[in-house]
Amino acid sequence: MSDQYFTEQQTPYLRLGVRVVRELHAEQTQYQSLKVYETTELGRMLVLDEIIQLTTSDEFTYHEMVAHVPLTIHPDPRTALVIGGGDGGVVREALRHDSLERADLVDIDEAVVRIGKQFFPSVSAGYADPRSHVYIADGIVHVRDHPGEYDVVMIDSTDPIGPAVGLFRADFYRSVYDCLREPGLFTQQIGSPFYNGEFIQQTVAAAREAFPVVRVYTGVVPTYPGGLWCYLLGMKGELGLVPNEARADKVTGRYYSAAVHRGAFCLPPFVASLVNGEK
Amino acid sequence: MSDQYFTEQQTPYLRLGVRVVRELHAEQTQYQSLKVYETTELGRMLVLDEIIQLTTSDEFTYHEMVAHVPLTIHPDPRTALVIGGGDGGVVREALRHDSLERADLVDIDEAVVRIGKQFFPSVSAGYADPRSHVYIADGIVHVRDHPGEYDVVMIDSTDPIGPAVGLFRADFYRSVYDCLREPGLFTQQIGSPFYNGEFIQQTVAAAREAFPVVRVYTGVVPTYPGGLWCYLLGMKGELGLVPNEARADKVTGRYYSAAVHRGAFCLPPFVASLVNGEK
Repeated sequence: MSDQYFTEQQTPYLRLGVRVVRELHAEQTQYQSLKVYETTELGRMLVLDEIIQLTTSDEFTYHEMVAHVPLTIHPDPRTALVIGGGDGGVVREALRHDSLERADLVDIDEAVVRIGKQFFPSVSAGYADPRSHVYIADGIVHVRDHPGEYDVVMIDSTDPIGPAVGLFRADFYRSVYDCLREPGLFTQQIGSPFYNGEFIQQTVAAAREAFPVVRVYTGVVPTYPGGLWCYLLGMKGELGLVPNEARADKVTGRYYSAAVHRGAFCLPPFVASLVNGEK
Repeated sequence: MSDQYFTEQQTPYLRLGVRVVRELHAEQTQYQSLKVYETTELGRMLVLDEIIQLTTSDEFTYHEMVAHVPLTIHPDPRTALVIGGGDGGVVREALRHDSLERADLVDIDEAVVRIGKQFFPSVSAGYADPRSHVYIADGIVHVRDHPGEYDVVMIDSTDPIGPAVGLFRADFYRSVYDCLREPGLFTQQIGSPFYNGEFIQQTVAAAREAFPVVRVYTGVVPTYPGGLWCYLLGMKGELGLVPNEARADKVTGRYYSAAVHRGAFCLPPFVASLVNGEK
């Protein structure tokens, strides 16, 4: 940080600087460095290993798209699992679906959950709901130990460096497949089509080793590199991509709507090429 | 520029740094400062008044969305006008439409056209087409002097500071209305819904003073603030928003497709609220 700016090295050749008022918290957890800033205009900001995870001004775009797309595609979601996402944003959005009887969250790092509750009350709001359950554990082990238990799995991890590296591999996707009840599906953020093209290709290929139906949709997160972000979606069976309109209308937020849901699968041709494994 | 980075102050509280190899050109034109950089990973980059206008790695997203959305909505576009856009990217995309008999470009600053031809041959490629005509003149005067002459007008201006300030006002939109032939339409970039919300509201309101039908669509430009960008569309009559599928397929590029076109009008609710003049 220099000159009142927190600067993220977004890629080897791009930097984003966010003006900050002050650092509210900093610690080295067992798994990563964790910082909380009060920014000048973007609200509070959570930073893990020097990468911006969320700001309170724009977290809605990411959390709504990770949660509502799979939950409105599923015909009747009762049980959901969030892997990572200790800040609570995905749990908050998931629990807006009345059909959900249980939303489990498993984050390997207790600090993210603790800091979420302490510094991001609007994000961690879902933890007050009795349907939510927090496990501080390894998501890879958790999915292995809970076969056939979830209708929807939402993987809200950090980038594939550090603690999250195992969450983008075929053997993990096979465990996710097994922990889903028919007809289950999962979603996961997989990066920028502009700057992480090769990684997206590898990850889609890995998911295809485990899931018969794999799709990609996009959304925008303004503080992520390039803005445009890809989400992976894997289904045990062919549920289609169309949201249940009534339930989508009920959870329509600031970013998500049934129309945005449909538009998110209209991939720009250069993104479709990546997903189809073309160079 | 410090430490081999060109840094743009995107908003009062956000900075984007792009790693550069070297500055290829710098001049103070009659209207603005103009710089060309060779970047490490984004190709060549055009900077006007310290704002990134394009990089050769991602200009396709912007130019395809400015050109193909109006040109595929129009039932039979014969004549098109580009205001600004001296780099030539919009002209290049527009001339991919076979029906076009003429694409006029009017840029107030000859330097942008000259530098486009010299340093950005892949962008200015359309100038080689005999259907293109370049006017170095004030776009406001040009539209006033050419009533009823164009089927489609594409306004590819810099931000509403400096020379472009007059291109976002109701009196200008009235002139654009008059320079369009029935059933004509125009498009224009109007900024980020995350960071320029008030400006978008004002501009939509100004366009509504002149045009009976005003819509907004979005696209992503990774080197613009927040990535998500709004485009204004004003129509003399109700042409609908749906592209002509056959023509859309013919001009499908790396970003634009008929599906992306339709998806671009599925506005996130927070963007729809801006457009509808809600706070």
